Amino acid sequence: MKIPKSHPRYVSLKIRDKIVEGVKKNITSLHGLMAHGRGEAFDYLLREKTTSEATKAIEAAAALLALAKYPVISVNGNTAALVPRELVALSNARNAPLEINIFHASKKREHAIKKQLHIYGAKNILSPGKNTMIKFLESNRKYVNKRGIYKADVVFVPLEDGDRTEALVRNGKKVIVVDLNPLSRSAQKATITIVDNIIRSMPLLISELKKMKGLDNARLRRLISSFSNQENLASSIRLIQQNFTEKTKHL
Amino acid sequence: MKIPKSHPRYVSLKIRDKIVEGVKKNITSLHGLMAHGRGEAFDYLLREKTTSEATKAIEAAAALLALAKYPVISVNGNTAALVPRELVALSNARNAPLEINIFHASKKREHAIKKQLHIYGAKNILSPGKNTMIKFLESNRKYVNKRGIYKADVVFVPLEDGDRTEALVRNGKKVIVVDLNPLSRSAQKATITIVDNIIRSMPLLISELKKMKGLDNARLRRLISSFSNQENLASSIRLIQQNFTEKTKHL
Repeated sequence: MKIPKSHPRYVSLKIRDKIVEGVKKNITSLHGLMAHGRGEAFDYLLREKTTSEATKAIEAAAALLALAKYPVISVNGNTAALVPRELVALSNARNAPLEINIFHASKKREHAIKKQLHIYGAKNILSPGKNTMIKFLESNRKYVNKRGIYKADVVFVPLEDGDRTEALVRNGKKVIVVDLNPLSRSAQKATITIVDNIIRSMPLLISELKKMKGLDNARLRRLISSFSNQENLASSIRLIQQNFTEKTKHL
Repeated sequence: MKIPKSHPRYVSLKIRDKIVEGVKKNITSLHGLMAHGRGEAFDYLLREKTTSEATKAIEAAAALLALAKYPVISVNGNTAALVPRELVALSNARNAPLEINIFHASKKREHAIKKQLHIYGAKNILSPGKNTMIKFLESNRKYVNKRGIYKADVVFVPLEDGDRTEALVRNGKKVIVVDLNPLSRSAQKATITIVDNIIRSMPLLISELKKMKGLDNARLRRLISSFSNQENLASSIRLIQQNFTEKTKHL
């Protein structure tokens, strides 16, 4: 369906088409589509804008990635469909592997995601290992690559669920998530939570990271230590409540 | 994936499987799946329970259906996947046709929905006409059946979007919707809005309707006139805000 640019929901509808395309290419699962819908509802409550809270979280996340000894980017079906170009740009900017990890195990889908990342120029793609796993996780998502998440100190896992985020943290990793719902378990358990649409936040994260290339480690550490994820989340929650009240006013 | 009954999100996960099944049977569109996800987010904010506001709206909706001269039930891909049995039960209880009307036009999907309704024992299924249309609507959803929505005084259109709800009302119909988002345009424009999950509200609507069979028209009219959709919506909105605050407390 051709969407006119004048449509008040143009951006949101274009993003929907992107993720539907992901399903058709067998990159995204049907459950991933529903998860996208849940995110949309929260984005609506955030007025579909990158908030100042998100901007602060992106800056702290960039500093954490810049300081990391061995950062790894976890890729699932939704992120591969929505931001393949940006995932590869981040991987190249930080020389960090892209490790595929999907909720509903499927070799076919794993291959489709790999193919998608290749098309966008990915150089370092890893698959989950057969015998290497992280602790505190039951599902198939516990399997990780020995040269990837297994030895990572910082893992960037956009659009992840609570189980895995919590497990990664309990395995001693610093975890950066992107989640539109500040109340979700994933948002609550991560080291740094970017409450924003991944479409808007990935380009910002990449440019922040590039800006930090010249900064010394002490400066980066100060950026991180002056950021409180708990306070940032509380502030995003307050903002949603305010927007809700605002949206209700004219009724 | 087998879901254990003990899982805290058992019901929600079972519903997800139902709608994914709908996609596989070509009943539900991929965009419908995302819409389901958006609904889920609001259901989460409603604590996944039928509120006392929804109970009141269901009662008024049942009275409106009971009093209708010619009620019609509009069926789309999501409702056909989620509540086929209940749609047919409502159709039979009120001797009201089921008229198929889907957002993304597709003859194949129309046939799949028809087949699904037949399996559940539907006797009176209508398709949109080629030359009959309602006013004030641009999309293909303006096409209606001459013996159905075209001549209906009351239309039950669960899970509908704002455009069509508004157009139906402007065409002089009384419109009952089911929508988990009390802020949506559909919720705001309908004659009666049931802010509830369709899985929970359909059985309640059917049993309310059956209870009303013995009541006289004056009593039914009083039930309707004592119900204010505006107040009911405002009350649902307040409830979501309270739940939001409540969910935030332990953080």
